Amino acid sequence: MKKLINAPNDVVEEMIAGFAAAHPQHVRRLPEHNRSLVTAKDTAEGKVGILIGGGAGHEPAFMGYVGAGMADGVAVGNIFASPPPDPILEATKAIDKGEGVVFIYGNYAGDVMNFGMAAELAALDYGIPVGVVIVTDDVASAPAEERDNRRGIAGEFLVTKVAGAAAAQGYSLSEVVRVSNKANARTRSMGVGLTPCSLPQTGQPSFELEADEMEIGLGHHGEPGIEKGPLQTADRVAERLVHDILADMPLEPGSRTAVLVNGLGSTTRMELYIVFRRVEQLMSDRGIIIHRSYVGEYSTSLEMGGCSVTVLHLDDELEELIDYPADCPMYVQK
Amino acid sequence: MKKLINAPNDVVEEMIAGFAAAHPQHVRRLPEHNRSLVTAKDTAEGKVGILIGGGAGHEPAFMGYVGAGMADGVAVGNIFASPPPDPILEATKAIDKGEGVVFIYGNYAGDVMNFGMAAELAALDYGIPVGVVIVTDDVASAPAEERDNRRGIAGEFLVTKVAGAAAAQGYSLSEVVRVSNKANARTRSMGVGLTPCSLPQTGQPSFELEADEMEIGLGHHGEPGIEKGPLQTADRVAERLVHDILADMPLEPGSRTAVLVNGLGSTTRMELYIVFRRVEQLMSDRGIIIHRSYVGEYSTSLEMGGCSVTVLHLDDELEELIDYPADCPMYVQK
Repeated sequence: MKKLINAPNDVVEEMIAGFAAAHPQHVRRLPEHNRSLVTAKDTAEGKVGILIGGGAGHEPAFMGYVGAGMADGVAVGNIFASPPPDPILEATKAIDKGEGVVFIYGNYAGDVMNFGMAAELAALDYGIPVGVVIVTDDVASAPAEERDNRRGIAGEFLVTKVAGAAAAQGYSLSEVVRVSNKANARTRSMGVGLTPCSLPQTGQPSFELEADEMEIGLGHHGEPGIEKGPLQTADRVAERLVHDILADMPLEPGSRTAVLVNGLGSTTRMELYIVFRRVEQLMSDRGIIIHRSYVGEYSTSLEMGGCSVTVLHLDDELEELIDYPADCPMYVQK
Repeated sequence: MKKLINAPNDVVEEMIAGFAAAHPQHVRRLPEHNRSLVTAKDTAEGKVGILIGGGAGHEPAFMGYVGAGMADGVAVGNIFASPPPDPILEATKAIDKGEGVVFIYGNYAGDVMNFGMAAELAALDYGIPVGVVIVTDDVASAPAEERDNRRGIAGEFLVTKVAGAAAAQGYSLSEVVRVSNKANARTRSMGVGLTPCSLPQTGQPSFELEADEMEIGLGHHGEPGIEKGPLQTADRVAERLVHDILADMPLEPGSRTAVLVNGLGSTTRMELYIVFRRVEQLMSDRGIIIHRSYVGEYSTSLEMGGCSVTVLHLDDELEELIDYPADCPMYVQK
């Protein structure tokens, strides 16, 4: 696939360089590690730090979410590969303001291992307490009774939003962990893939689909979904995704939610809004209130085609945190 | 090409329905015309109205830019086709607060005709004075001595930003027109196409390129560019675009600019930041200051692959207007 790049092995380094050059008012690279970025703003002493990260290729996740009301630092891996412990640890040291740091990442083996090691090193070598929040929102990736085995996908944006707002408001380390885990426990996502992406190094498609096929439940790195079949209409796709999400997390009429329709890369906003239209009808039919809507690219898989739907079941506390302002290079909320 | 839609002829209607359902706090559809949307916020009496619009398929342009500090209303055409005078006129009537309305649109025959007719009708039938600003930023579309024949592309976002900020600050109709025309006069863009998009109705690609080809200067609807050739590196592409832009608008060292690297649809943010990295180096080498950077999708061509670079040469007045906050469904600036 055609890509606007230089050398395939330089894409992550050059992307980060461009990102830091574009947003000096928001972020700075750490001299200690070229894969660690932290907020350029002064952070209050005593504020709990929020650290995010994971493989590159999901932009605007994760580095686009460093900023006021969101994360204080990010560690960036290679494409679809976890960052090693070093850049995580360096970012942790840089953002700790005396009250510890909360790590938020998706449930992938590499991330669990590397963020886990960095958490241990931060505590043992530097006395920095670390809380860990592992996002597991993808209902297609494991059955309900194995919730802890599920992968994290676009719902991580909403969990980060909640955590960042809580930390900005002065929540303690344990309270940020509590409310972030609550947000994850009340978040469900499911996606559909239409066309693959390709890694710059190989140029090979991340999965195979026929010209008239789609795959329900496909993961954010092309992990197999739960059903391949003929491409259906936007309405049928929306109905399937909402059905599976609400079967996993039944919501009473009157429930308040935040809903995210996330583009995986090459799917147009036109299509995302067409999907949202049906999602909103389905929620409305059930008497479920959409308190806040997000439609666009929040966590991509390079130029993959398709989308995911995420529902976060709000309570009063989560609603207040979701409504809290944010100011990041790739996400601003008033 | 695979698309997440229902019936091809319903895509614009369903997109607008989804958009209005997703952003009720920002926009409302006019009961008078289903292709007219206006800001949901109360607008001060005496504020000059800003009306934008054009064909659909360029999202977030144009309807994503209705909101505080940007446009008050939008008329949405079919895909890549100008809206007729009716929805333009209805939106004009709805957003006029006694001091008239400024139309901002790109220089395309259909838009010039239809917005022109709507402007006449507004004045003659309703006594609403209308100012017109036609954006002509694409340096590849006509030589410098025919500036008025150039097409409008991604620079329209920046012209709208300037106009919206000026109107929000109480500029008069003629002053909004003056400063918007100044912004257009100091804005240059040029793009590169890698892969075509397809219209839902036909499924046919909007232009033809070989698997290893790119096209410099390609228009936002697939209009022919100025040079087809082998796909080059991101750095070479950035150098070509910046070269042609600065050849057309020479900038002294110390000049202040706003720079936009705009994705056309399926090009990843990773690639856009790699392009921005080189653009920033080139500007820095020349002593040109980038006061504000925009990297992302600001005006797309459905799922077209490629990007454009836009440079706005700031002065004190334009810098203040570019820095003014905005709050739209698809663009928020603090």
